[in-house]
Formats: sequence, structure tokens, C-alpha cells
Amino acid sequence: MTIEGTNRALTRPIRLGMVGGGKDAFIGAVHRIASRIDGKYELVAGALSSTPERARESGHTLGLKEDRIYDCFLEMAKREARLKDGIEAVAIVTPNHMHYPVAKEFLKRGIHVICDKPLTSTLADAKKMVKAAEKSDALFFLTHNYTGYPMVRQARELVQNGDLGPLRVVQVEYAQDWLSVDLHNKQADWRTDPARTGIGGSTGDIGTHAFNLACFITGLKAESLAADLQSFVPGRKVDDNAHVMLRFEGGARGMLWCSQVAPGNENNLKIRVYGEKAGLEWCQENPNYLQFTQFGAPQQLITRGGAGMSASIASTTRVPAGHPEGYLEGFANLYSEAADAIRAHQSGKPAATLIPGIEEGLAGEQFIDACVRSSARNSAWVKLDG
Amino acid sequence: MTIEGTNRALTRPIRLGMVGGGKDAFIGAVHRIASRIDGKYELVAGALSSTPERARESGHTLGLKEDRIYDCFLEMAKREARLKDGIEAVAIVTPNHMHYPVAKEFLKRGIHVICDKPLTSTLADAKKMVKAAEKSDALFFLTHNYTGYPMVRQARELVQNGDLGPLRVVQVEYAQDWLSVDLHNKQADWRTDPARTGIGGSTGDIGTHAFNLACFITGLKAESLAADLQSFVPGRKVDDNAHVMLRFEGGARGMLWCSQVAPGNENNLKIRVYGEKAGLEWCQENPNYLQFTQFGAPQQLITRGGAGMSASIASTTRVPAGHPEGYLEGFANLYSEAADAIRAHQSGKPAATLIPGIEEGLAGEQFIDACVRSSARNSAWVKLDG
Amino acid sequence: MTIEGTNRALTRPIRLGMVGGGKDAFIGAVHRIASRIDGKYELVAGALSSTPERARESGHTLGLKEDRIYDCFLEMAKREARLKDGIEAVAIVTPNHMHYPVAKEFLKRGIHVICDKPLTSTLADAKKMVKAAEKSDALFFLTHNYTGYPMVRQARELVQNGDLGPLRVVQVEYAQDWLSVDLHNKQADWRTDPARTGIGGSTGDIGTHAFNLACFITGLKAESLAADLQSFVPGRKVDDNAHVMLRFEGGARGMLWCSQVAPGNENNLKIRVYGEKAGLEWCQENPNYLQFTQFGAPQQLITRGGAGMSASIASTTRVPAGHPEGYLEGFANLYSEAADAIRAHQSGKPAATLIPGIEEGLAGEQFIDACVRSSARNSAWVKLDG
Amino acid sequence: MTIEGTNRALTRPIRLGMVGGGKDAFIGAVHRIASRIDGKYELVAGALSSTPERARESGHTLGLKEDRIYDCFLEMAKREARLKDGIEAVAIVTPNHMHYPVAKEFLKRGIHVICDKPLTSTLADAKKMVKAAEKSDALFFLTHNYTGYPMVRQARELVQNGDLGPLRVVQVEYAQDWLSVDLHNKQADWRTDPARTGIGGSTGDIGTHAFNLACFITGLKAESLAADLQSFVPGRKVDDNAHVMLRFEGGARGMLWCSQVAPGNENNLKIRVYGEKAGLEWCQENPNYLQFTQFGAPQQLITRGGAGMSASIASTTRVPAGHPEGYLEGFANLYSEAADAIRAHQSGKPAATLIPGIEEGLAGEQFIDACVRSSARNSAWVKLDG
Repeated sequence: MTIEGTNRALTRPIRLGMVGGGKDAFIGAVHRIASRIDGKYELVAGALSSTPERARESGHTLGLKEDRIYDCFLEMAKREARLKDGIEAVAIVTPNHMHYPVAKEFLKRGIHVICDKPLTSTLADAKKMVKAAEKSDALFFLTHNYTGYPMVRQARELVQNGDLGPLRVVQVEYAQDWLSVDLHNKQADWRTDPARTGIGGSTGDIGTHAFNLACFITGLKAESLAADLQSFVPGRKVDDNAHVMLRFEGGARGMLWCSQVAPGNENNLKIRVYGEKAGLEWCQENPNYLQFTQFGAPQQLITRGGAGMSASIASTTRVPAGHPEGYLEGFANLYSEAADAIRAHQSGKPAATLIPGIEEGLAGEQFIDACVRSSARNSAWVKLDG
Repeated sequence: MTIEGTNRALTRPIRLGMVGGGKDAFIGAVHRIASRIDGKYELVAGALSSTPERARESGHTLGLKEDRIYDCFLEMAKREARLKDGIEAVAIVTPNHMHYPVAKEFLKRGIHVICDKPLTSTLADAKKMVKAAEKSDALFFLTHNYTGYPMVRQARELVQNGDLGPLRVVQVEYAQDWLSVDLHNKQADWRTDPARTGIGGSTGDIGTHAFNLACFITGLKAESLAADLQSFVPGRKVDDNAHVMLRFEGGARGMLWCSQVAPGNENNLKIRVYGEKAGLEWCQENPNYLQFTQFGAPQQLITRGGAGMSASIASTTRVPAGHPEGYLEGFANLYSEAADAIRAHQSGKPAATLIPGIEEGLAGEQFIDACVRSSARNSAWVKLDG
Repeated sequence: MTIEGTNRALTRPIRLGMVGGGKDAFIGAVHRIASRIDGKYELVAGALSSTPERARESGHTLGLKEDRIYDCFLEMAKREARLKDGIEAVAIVTPNHMHYPVAKEFLKRGIHVICDKPLTSTLADAKKMVKAAEKSDALFFLTHNYTGYPMVRQARELVQNGDLGPLRVVQVEYAQDWLSVDLHNKQADWRTDPARTGIGGSTGDIGTHAFNLACFITGLKAESLAADLQSFVPGRKVDDNAHVMLRFEGGARGMLWCSQVAPGNENNLKIRVYGEKAGLEWCQENPNYLQFTQFGAPQQLITRGGAGMSASIASTTRVPAGHPEGYLEGFANLYSEAADAIRAHQSGKPAATLIPGIEEGLAGEQFIDACVRSSARNSAWVKLDG
Repeated sequence: MTIEGTNRALTRPIRLGMVGGGKDAFIGAVHRIASRIDGKYELVAGALSSTPERARESGHTLGLKEDRIYDCFLEMAKREARLKDGIEAVAIVTPNHMHYPVAKEFLKRGIHVICDKPLTSTLADAKKMVKAAEKSDALFFLTHNYTGYPMVRQARELVQNGDLGPLRVVQVEYAQDWLSVDLHNKQADWRTDPARTGIGGSTGDIGTHAFNLACFITGLKAESLAADLQSFVPGRKVDDNAHVMLRFEGGARGMLWCSQVAPGNENNLKIRVYGEKAGLEWCQENPNYLQFTQFGAPQQLITRGGAGMSASIASTTRVPAGHPEGYLEGFANLYSEAADAIRAHQSGKPAATLIPGIEEGLAGEQFIDACVRSSARNSAWVKLDG
């Protein structure tokens, strides 16, 4: 366990800007809380909405200074880059189709980017984003936030340490129910609109999380997949349920299920990994626990902050065992680590982190693309980078 | 709740014989306990092993009379059919490849058959079994025992009543870990030997249970599947892990995972069904509970014997809510219902039951066959009855 | 795991009689199923009701021979004792107040007694029962059936082996909700009638189970208790909720809660034991699992039939891990062990078992008596044998 | 669900000071995170340790300005009260014995106090604190943080709405294991030292939380209690395990168990409440769920942010159902509501909140005192305000 007052400290907080995340946004608010939890950021500028009035109102609500509230992200990128105390990093929390247009402007100007997932709304944009990031000296972080949970880190470490032996089977699923009906509100509208969300519905919005989590924990590279996508709700233009079989390099096999039409599932992201020697299981909805079973031995329950947790994970948790941490703390871990990486980078030091970035973002877009291609070809196996 | 002393009674117990199930057998012992629980059977004859000495020893241990212990099932079928007080029913608990050769001899002689699953070791045998059953006046019961659990019946009823609305998604899995290593003992040996178990390993041994359960609860007919089968343990001649995507008549989709190499899973059969209006979840390892969630309402926990259970299920449970029933009681429900059906049949009354029979047995063999065919064709979709 | 066909066998089943347990009885049916599961008993005689007609009808339903159906337990005791193939053991499943009058007649005639709990309806009767048992050569078994669960045996063994270190704290509770309202039916009526049930309501009916379980697992002797008893339902003449503090010899302390008015609790018997080195937890409603945590190490889940289970427990379970056993199998373990003890006794061999008997029965009556005395004295500490 | 960007906003954050909470402190860090989560506070001053060097180092680490880092809380109270932009509120996170001496100095100067629990280390101090608060115009908040959990609020509302009917039984427990051995570190040392923690060990540190939670949810006033306190670890000067029976006004009864020597319990605070019509259960270690069962109906699972949650609770949660919140968010709810109350008070508006305050703090001290008195009198019933 880490006391925030000591080793989480920064000499001064990072100046942060935000694009998107105005009134009624969900993920923007989450990013802001995550940025505050460890006190390593100060939100100083924002282009919080594409509607100027809303952008201004939201900026006021958040206590931004008048001259740091922007109607337009491009104007913000240009001006902040010139300011002496301009933002050092920008959080991009718009619908997917805006990720690339926004990010490239900040990357171009050396401003670090913390971008919500998935990377972009199209694979083409994703490839452009890769180039934009390569050209830039700035860092790029993709908030596949579930990788920030301590017990996910613990799971990854068990695999890396060989505690499971060579891996055989990965079962990952991400089930929700909120789109079981033909819902219309701000969140539902853009997430079911191909123009804004991309060609993948549930595959893009939550399938990429599941896919990323599987790769993050196992360290495996997915080679090919076979997918059967459905749009169960009449009139829905993107998939709302997807069944996917996976083949990983080295021979492990996987199944991935994502659904937004499974009544009784709130935000049920769950992963199970099995190797020759042991298996593990983790559920996002009760994230402080990790089940680990060596073949032939009783199941062990590893708890966040508890006796079975590795020392290396300690910096990702703030309170002792039995004091549950949740979604926001996991998210905050990414923000906290990004801040450390930014400061390291500014000092010319290496800024290695476990936070997903451009590469994982591209893999996510390839996942969506492969799902759609495979499903269109009657679930034929397709390469992810094909 | 039903008091066994009242409505479970039979005027006199059914005279039962057994083929297989000698010393060290697992499922034979289970069948015997299941037959005893409600007191509706009396085991009076047996050809308990293909090894005469073992057959005899096992017969003595079980207290069979000397002249009702047989070295050979054929001799038993012939003689018992002639005896005035010969067996009325036979339980077949041999390895799979013997199901058909044994069953046909008893069916031919009008002796009712209670046969362990899967129906046979080959699809060809299954088709012959269908014919043998058609020709016979005797009843045929297949012990897909998981259909005997009260909460499985409850789940089926919720679907039938339309409480879930039109179905969309079925997730079923059956994971074990006992074959994670190259194990050799009586149980493991025949279950991994294609000559005795058939072409399916995990697909045949447990996948058929999962498949049957999904069909039993949903009432849906599976049209086609795409499968990716693996034999992870070096040298293993049959699959020990299978990933299967399913398409049902009417448009519902499913995933089925079966595995015998998933450390931490003892006998983890689990099913989830989602419709337009609600979802449900049931796990075999904690079988007295059924989770049911209507979209937009809190999850309800329906308990065996508890307030949410349908009156129609009451006859499948013996003790009040909170007094857990398990595997043997579920199994006993099939035996109990088979006894009632046999007596009804003997009285010339219709003998409708929910117990899986020939049709479900054939479907199981088609499932195995389709899995193997699809996997051989790189997971192409194949028809189940193709 | 034990295969019933081998080491559970008896040369011939024990001839069993039953007193009580007629139509609509609950526990009589349970005893009968429990006696059948391992095939070690044959029910051949009964005085199944104090109402002759009902006794006869019930006897017919159970398939007893005409001349072994008795209107009166005394007649049954006398006649069966004289018969060449008379009963060897009798199960007493009447309301509490009849336990002693019935048992003494069978004990007197050398017929082994399997008696439902609590021992008697009064402490005075309990003391007489002790004498009756002492004078008799017959064995006396008290069906505190929860001691028959394999994981309860495992818990006991962990304590005995010192795996918990010296014990400090015992938390035991038994909560139900069925008497939350002023219910009237056969089961409720006698259980709330002091003349038939005794001076304790919830304390007698379920508190004695909880108390017995705590003593069974810990091996500790309770020295004194302080109790606060309530009858929440207006008009109820016995307690329906009891709060009890316990002091054990050697310094361990405990709390016991029993209630029949706790909505949401079906049959929630649960125990937790803490020592200097480790703690354990077991719940009757999901009885195949035992949580065991060594101080400073991750919690382990010991499963019935699984890797962490002691070899010595194997004979109490019939099916492999993951195939849940329940209430009836736990109950059947007592019947099975009683049968072995009876056969041993008949052969002049020692008949040591773990089954609770006269001593535990007396302790239970002392527990009820102490609860009532303490509560009447405003929860003063009173000795159990005071 | 509430979007933080909208209705959580304050025109400007409240200027906060902190006494205690320096390097290696646990609860100080928690208070700081809690104060940051909703962005309603800015930490600007601190007397973070009684050791000047440590106070200074901790102040620097937290980024306080040089002249707002104090060696001494009295100096801080005096100077901040005079500053134009002095602190508006102070968080007191010292060991218990310093709560009163510190608080009175800030109360005296009209600075709002957010004080960690328990209120004081002695009942005498608690009574003085009451007077100090009465004399002051400032607000006083006591961080019984578990009252901040949304599902605790939901439980309280169900009771208030009469959904449980008249209450009968309250079962509350708070078990930990960290003091199972004779531990020595900063946290353990003061918590087991009567001079700093007070006369209650587990009763004071965690028993008061359990007691407060029971009163908060039920709205009942505890009249009297009977307690049996132990110090199991040799040499320990305060209780480390306590068994308590409770009697509430109106006739409800309760049991309270608190322990710091129960291996396998991390921070296991759990409450169950039963009324004539229904029961509920909530566990702190998985706090997003509330079990609610109406007598005769299936158990319902009410989830934070989910369908069963009352609209009135919405402001206490930040993310949708299935995105777990934890300990820090519950704590932050108190900080957030305190901020709103302070701003209301500053505007001359009523500042009613659900946050525990002086009255609840006094009740907690009476609880500790009564436990010790009762235990010394062999668990006699004693009045809480006796």
C-alpha cells in the first residue's frame, strides 16, 4: 500500500487541457476525477463541447479561467502551445471519430495526449494516428482503464512469472444490458451511429476493452479470429452482440463475447486464463479479488493490498486490503502513471509505463476491423493485421 | 416441496438391472444411488463388468443374488426377459462404445433402457439406436442428468412462459480441470480413447451435456455451428478443449465452451440465457439458485423450494428451501420420473416426461460430429444434421 | 471419494423401524431418504402416526407389510423385539416431547435408537434418557445432521490438527424466516407449542443445532452463557429469536444467534472459528466449500472432494469435487456411520463414531435450559450444567 | 448517477487545512484523496505532525506554501483565523486523544471542523467537545465514512420508508485480523495505547463504526447493552475482540461483534437488519450491492446506480452501475456534502446533512464507555447514557 502523501507526489501538478467532456458527458467527468485523485494534474483549459455555448457553460462550471475556455480544439491547440504556462497534456474525451483529428493537432505541437479508447473510429485513421505519434516527441496514452486495476496487474505478473505455465485458453467477456432496447440519449446516440463510433458497435465500445485486457494480462499476440456479429435490436446499424473465437501466437486459443443486450449484466467484464500449471479469474464488478488456482491445489483468493499481492503492485493501490477500490481508482492509476511518465520524459529520462498506447490502440482497431471482416465472410478466420 | 412418503410412492419398486458399473466405476455408483433415493427401484440383476471375475465380485458386493449376477450382458438380456420376475428396466453405464450393442439387446426384448450419455460412440451407432428404439415398445431414457435439477426446470419454464421474451443469446460452458495433465486411470483411460469414447473427447463427455442443457432450457433447435477443437495435452487423441459458436433456428446465437484442461474448474457447468425482456443464469456447482433479471429491474434470486419457484417444479424437490440438494438428487429426479413413466406405460397410459431420450441423444451425437467436422474444415459453419 | 458399490457395502441391510414420520411430516421423510442413500437399511416396520388411521395409510404408502404397521409405538417395541426378523434399529421422528417416552421402550428392549434432535422436550426427560441409555446395551444416535457434512468434518479436523492454533473466537448463527408471521400448519404448530417442543422455541429447534455444531467443530466445552431471548411474533409462547454470548473452557469466547424471524434467511446455518494462527468459515446453504485462511496468507477454498480435503474425510462423500452434495447426503452420512457402528457392535467390536449421541443431546438440553434461565435473569451469565 | 461536472460544482473550492496526517499516516492520506475527488476543496495549510521536522517535510511533499506549513496546530488556528484567505475548514486526522484539544481551538475561531472518528479518547472530552461545538458557529463533521456509501443510504431509506416494517433484529459486525499478533508499527502503536486511543481498543477503533452504522441505517436509538470484552493478544492493554448485545428503544434487539484478531477478515464490516416485513444485508467489502428480501418473495439485489436504487441516492454516486465505487468514493461523499453544507452555512442557509456530527460522536463515546463498564460488571446490561 502506498500513502498518497509520499511517493505519489509531484513537485507541481501537470497542466491539463480537455477536449470534449462537457455537460452530460460521461467519460469526461471520469477523466477529470481520475486526474484529481492523486493530485498530479490541474485542469486549466478546455474545448469541452463542439457547441460553443455548451463549451463555455461547461468551462465555467469547471472553474476554468475565461481565456482558457475554447470554442474550438484547434484554436486551443495553437494558443496553448504558445502560452508560457500552456497545457502540458490534453485529455481527448470526444466521440471516437474526433480522436484522430484532435490528437494530431496536439501531437504536432508536442503536447502529450491522453486519449479515450478506442483509438479512432476507422482503421485508416488509426494508421494515420500511428504516424502522427511517431513524428511527435509527445507521449500518447490510451485509456484502456481496466489495465489500471491492481488485480489486473497482479494477474499479468502471475502470467509473466510463469506461475500459470505455458498458456492454453483465454476466456474473456464484456457484457452489458443498457442497449437491450432501442435507447436514445446522448450516450446511446453516438455509440450506435457508425459515423461517430465507427464500424464496430459493441465490438468497438467494449469488445476492444476485452481484447486489450486479454492481451495485457497474457502478453499474447492474437493472430487471427473468427467472428459472428449481430445487431439484435431492430434498426440498429452496428453490432450489439459479438461472438469471437481467437487464435494466439504460440497456440493458445480464446473466446471473446461482448454484448450490450444481455439483461442482468451491468458492466460485466470478466477474464479467465488457463495455463498448463494454473488458472486465474478476475471480474471487473468486484475488482479487488483475484482467484488463482494451481492445478491440484485449493483455490487461493489474492486480494488487493492483501498477503498474496506482489510488492511490485503496491504503488497501484491507496488503501489497505478490505477497503475496496473501484473503477475510478483504476482509472486514476493510468493518470498517475502518465503523469510520472510525462515528468520523466520532460527530464529526459525513459518513460516506460504499462499504460496502453498507440500500438495497443492500433491492435484494437485491427480487432474491430477483423471482427467485421470475418463476420461478413460467414465467420471465416481472418488475420488481425490482414 | 414434496414429501417422499406421499406422492413419490409406487405400489412396488421397479426391478432394475445394470450393465457396467462394477468396482471403481464412477457413474454406475451414481446411478445406483439415484435409483435408491426415492425408493422406486430395486436392483436385482447385473452384468457389472466385462471381466467375469470383477462382474461377480461387484455383484456380491451389491448383494445381488447369485443367479442374477451375469458375466455377459447378452446372457442377462436373454434370461431376464424370460424370468417371471425379470428386470423391468436396465441401466447401461458402460463406456460409450458399448451403449448401442447393449441397449439394442434389451430394447429388442421390451426391457426399458436407462442409458448414460452420450447416446453412443459414433453417429452411425446413434442412427441404429434410433431405429432400435423405434422398433421396440420399451421406453428409452438418456441420463443428461443436469436436466433433473429443479432450478434447470425453473429456467426452462421461465423461457417457455415467455418471461424472457424472444431469445437472443445463449452462453453455455462446461469446464473441468482433471485432464490438465496426461492422466492415466480407469476413468481417464476410456474417456481419452477414441475406440471407446468416440471421436469427441471433451465435446462428447461434457460438451454434449452443455449442448443438451442449452436446448433443454431454451427449447431452441441448434441449426449450425462453427468449432475450434484442441488437444492441448501432448499425445492426447481426442479434443480436451473446444470453442464453439452456435446458430439457433429463429435467429438466436450462442457460444459453447467445454474444457477438461482449465485449472480451478471442478465441474463448472454454467448457462446464461438472454432474451428481449430478461436474462437468467444458473451454475451447476451451486445449483439451488437461479438468477433472473428483468431488463430495468433488480436481479431476483429464485431458490429451490423458495417463494419464486413455480408450483409445477415442486415435485422435483424433497426438502425445503435452504436445505441444499445436489447432483445426486437431480439425478434421482430422472430416475423417479422414469419410474413413473414406466408404470404409466405398463398401465397403457401416456408416459410423457421431460427426460431426454433418443431424440436428444441423436442431437448430441450430431453435435459431436458437427464439432469435429467444422474444426477439420477450419471452423466453417456446418449444419448439425448435415 | 468413495464408490458406494465398494466400501459402503453391508452384507445385508439393517432392519429399520420408524416412530412418527407419517403423512405431511417433514423430518420423517428426510430420515427415510437418508437411510436409503447408501443402501444400508431396509424400512420394515412403523408406528408412523399417533392417529391410527393415518398410521395405517402412511404405512401402506411406504409399502410396509400389513403386520408391521403399528398403531402404537409401545406395541411395536414389544412385538418387534420378539420377532425373529424384528427391527434392529428404530428412527424416532416425532415431536420432541415423545422422544423420551418412545426411546426408552426401544432402548429397554435392546433396539438401537436413531433419534431426531433435540434430545427431549425437557431437561428432566433428558436426564432420564441418559439413564435409559446407560442401562441399555443398545446404541443411541442423535441426528444433529449438520455434523455429517464432509466440510464440517474437515473443519473439525483442521482444528484438531492445530491448524488454527489455540482458539479465540467462535461465531455461529442459524437464521430462518419461516416463522416471521403467525403461521399455522403441522410443522409450525408443534414447534411453537411448549407442551410439545419444550421451553425453547428457536433455541430448541435450531439453536441446539448451532450450539452442537460449534462444539463439534471446535472440540470446546461451553462453560457458561448469557442470553437475551425474544418472542417477536405477538402471541408466540416460545422464543423466536435469541442472542447468546458464550464462554468456553480455556478462554475462547463465542456468540450464537438463532432466529426464525429473519426475512431472507432460508436455513442459514453458518459458523466461523478463529484461532491464533488461522480462521475458517462454513455455510450450510453452500456446504461443499470451506474457507480457510492462515494469518498473513491468502484465503484458501477447500472443496468437498477437492485437493485440500483430508484423506480421512473421503468416506463421507460419494461424488467427485464439483458435483455438489447437500443436506440429504450429509444426513445419510450419519445413517451410514450408524449402520457401520451397529454392525460393529453386533460383532462385539468397538463402535466409535463421530455421530452425536446422548452426551451431546444432554448438552443441547442444558443449552436450552441455560438460555431460558439467563434470559429470565436479565441475561446474567449462567453455567450450562448449573 | 451524477455527472461531477454539473451538479457537484462549487464556485470556488473550500480552503482546507489539516492537522495530523504527515508521512506514513494512513487516514490523513485518505482524507486528502476524499477531499480531492469532487474538486470542492483546496488543501492550503497544515500542521501535519507533532514533530516539527516531519511536519515541514510532509508539508513540502504536499506542495503547501512555506508560510502555511505549521509546527503547531495552535499557531495554525490562530494565524489562519486572521488571514484574509485563511482556511475555511480543518480536517483533524490525529490520534484520538488530540481530537478535542485541536478541535476546540478551531471551533473557537469559527473554522469548520471535519474530524476523524471516534470523537475523542475519553467520554469526558466528548462532553467538552459537545459544549465547544455548541458555543461555536462553525459546523462539525465526524467522518464515520461508511455512512457515505450509496447502498448504506439506500438501506437507510428502505427502513425510513417502512419497507421493512417495524424493526426486530439488527446484526452488525466489524471484523479485522491485522492485530492477531503483537504488532508494532505507527498505526498499531497508537491504536493499542490507552493514552492515545482511549479505553476502548477494537470497540473504539471499529466498534464505533459498526454501532454508528447500525443507528444510521435503522434510525433506532440504542438504550442499553451487555458486553463481553477480551484482549486476546498477551500484553495488549485494550480490547481486541468484543461481543455486545444491544437493546433499542421500541423493542428491537441487536448483536454487535467487533474484532481485530479474526484471521481471514480484512475489513469486514457487515450489517443485517430484519423487520416484520423484510430484511436487508450489506457488506462493506463489496459495497455496491444491497440484498433486500421481502418476506415471501425472492431476494432482490439492489445495485449502486442500478434500477432498484432510489432517485434520492443518485447524488452520492459518480459512475454508472457496474462500474464499482469503493471506500474512497464513500468517504468523498462526506467531504462533498460537508462542502455543500459549509457553503450553505456561509450563505446563511440551513445546512442539514446526513453526515454524522457531534451527537453521533457523543453516542460513540457512550458506546465505548458502556462496553467497558458492562464488561467490568460481568456483562450486566448498562444504559448507554448512564
